[in-house]
Amino acid sequence: MTVTLKDIQQAYGRIQPYIHRTPILQSRALNQIIGCELLFKAENLQKIGAFKARGACNAVFSLDDASLQQGVITHSSGNHGAALAWAAALRGAPCTVVMPENAPSVKKAAVAGYGASIEFCESNMAAREGTVARLIKEQGTNLVHPYDSDVIIAGQGTVALETLQQIEQPIDIMMAPVGGGGLLGGTSICVKQSTTGIRVLGAEPEGANDAWQGFKSGTRLTQFKPNTIADGLRGTLGVRNFAIIRDQVDDILLTSEKRIVEAMRLIWTRLKMVVEPSAAVPLAAIMDWPEQFQGKRVAIILSGGNVDLDALPW
Amino acid sequence: MTVTLKDIQQAYGRIQPYIHRTPILQSRALNQIIGCELLFKAENLQKIGAFKARGACNAVFSLDDASLQQGVITHSSGNHGAALAWAAALRGAPCTVVMPENAPSVKKAAVAGYGASIEFCESNMAAREGTVARLIKEQGTNLVHPYDSDVIIAGQGTVALETLQQIEQPIDIMMAPVGGGGLLGGTSICVKQSTTGIRVLGAEPEGANDAWQGFKSGTRLTQFKPNTIADGLRGTLGVRNFAIIRDQVDDILLTSEKRIVEAMRLIWTRLKMVVEPSAAVPLAAIMDWPEQFQGKRVAIILSGGNVDLDALPW
Repeated sequence: MTVTLKDIQQAYGRIQPYIHRTPILQSRALNQIIGCELLFKAENLQKIGAFKARGACNAVFSLDDASLQQGVITHSSGNHGAALAWAAALRGAPCTVVMPENAPSVKKAAVAGYGASIEFCESNMAAREGTVARLIKEQGTNLVHPYDSDVIIAGQGTVALETLQQIEQPIDIMMAPVGGGGLLGGTSICVKQSTTGIRVLGAEPEGANDAWQGFKSGTRLTQFKPNTIADGLRGTLGVRNFAIIRDQVDDILLTSEKRIVEAMRLIWTRLKMVVEPSAAVPLAAIMDWPEQFQGKRVAIILSGGNVDLDALPW
Repeated sequence: MTVTLKDIQQAYGRIQPYIHRTPILQSRALNQIIGCELLFKAENLQKIGAFKARGACNAVFSLDDASLQQGVITHSSGNHGAALAWAAALRGAPCTVVMPENAPSVKKAAVAGYGASIEFCESNMAAREGTVARLIKEQGTNLVHPYDSDVIIAGQGTVALETLQQIEQPIDIMMAPVGGGGLLGGTSICVKQSTTGIRVLGAEPEGANDAWQGFKSGTRLTQFKPNTIADGLRGTLGVRNFAIIRDQVDDILLTSEKRIVEAMRLIWTRLKMVVEPSAAVPLAAIMDWPEQFQGKRVAIILSGGNVDLDALPW
């Protein structure tokens, strides 16, 4: 295991001055509808509107001054790009973000708004990684991978660390969506190394089920063409992330596009929280697999709230 | 003055066990866009999704047991109806809500969900009041008017009482939307009787400017046909409410439908809060009259979050 609870604790000390301690939200009406006690960790209220601020901040503040002057670069469908742009600006470092041309306009605007340069590429992992490799070769900048990175995983693990500090009574389950596996990886390390008896579950769209396939088969998928509304979960599970999730996570549950939209609407109408589709995937999975959750206390990480209001799925 | 600060304080003691102490939210990015320091009192996170829970709860808990057995009745475009249904259910009292047929479906569902009976009528004050009068005569139930009532005004005034308790530094301005005038009336009494130097401003859509007309002319309008997206503000200013607002409120600002939608989108995208159009009216007014707000600390009451996701204004 490359990342440990201690790394997550150190990351938390490093980033705490810059991030929000986001609240945990509950709705009695929603609990009655779903049939279990839900605690929503509202990372949609985090800096840049997503948990990705944590990992990016940890990555930037882990670099020494000389490295930072060379700048940072990443590829991202959006939130990690905005997060790195934001974190780099905190230390005055140059930042380049490689984004697919079909990324939501709100996410492009966020990256540009923090002063980073955007390089567009095609919407697949080969194009993203190729463009980043070319730019690193040309410019000598530091790669901050969106998820396949120890400092990123440790940073994202601080969501779980903070959640465990905030909840007053023990929980039975902690759930996170899984895309590249930074959040779920960090969550599983934190929960499994600091508690006993809490199940850690990932939730993934059926249309982007590469993590589920890898988890069930024992072999990580390297090529995958996702098709899901959950734009934050289209990345393919990373190498480090796969190893951590295979060893630490109890299960990954799949859910449908229709259910993701239904869960998203419930969060909007009942919690009055604007969340992006990816953030609704754990609740959607709970609705699809209710027998595993009846009467349980379940913490759900609401991963982000950056949604294009002109392209809502209803 | 029929309602005093003491009435608001007593109302707060009466309703506190049942309502949420809603948070105050801030966004540095939004402050930069608008050019002043905004403190949003998030009553969209209140019970039933709107501040109306406060007044209705105060009204129901002010009735004695014998009166309660006769049940309660009201007319409402939605949030007050849901609030009275919710409050009546807390004490096991029968509740009837007279609603216009064109009320948002989400608001109809909420009223029905709390177990109240709905009576539909045409969408004008005469039809609403006529239907209520007929049912009171037939059934002997207790009217709980949505705004022209001392106990309602005292209950709504607890939003300002709580806000003043929560803010750590003094504010320059407190703003509320104005429909029937329960919230703005209660707010002005609370602020003016407990502090000095805080301006109290109402905000109203141009398409429902009856309060503004009455405030400027000194004569309350009794007939008015509103035309605004802000469905919570379509009611005509009440008699008690007019007298309070005329004497206590510093000014009422008007804003356009287009600006209300723009402000609503800013609250959704920057605060990640689902709010209904009425709740966005104060921010819209600030955007239309920026010179009054530059550099000021302004508390805004986000009045509610009950919006039909299938009928969004963009």
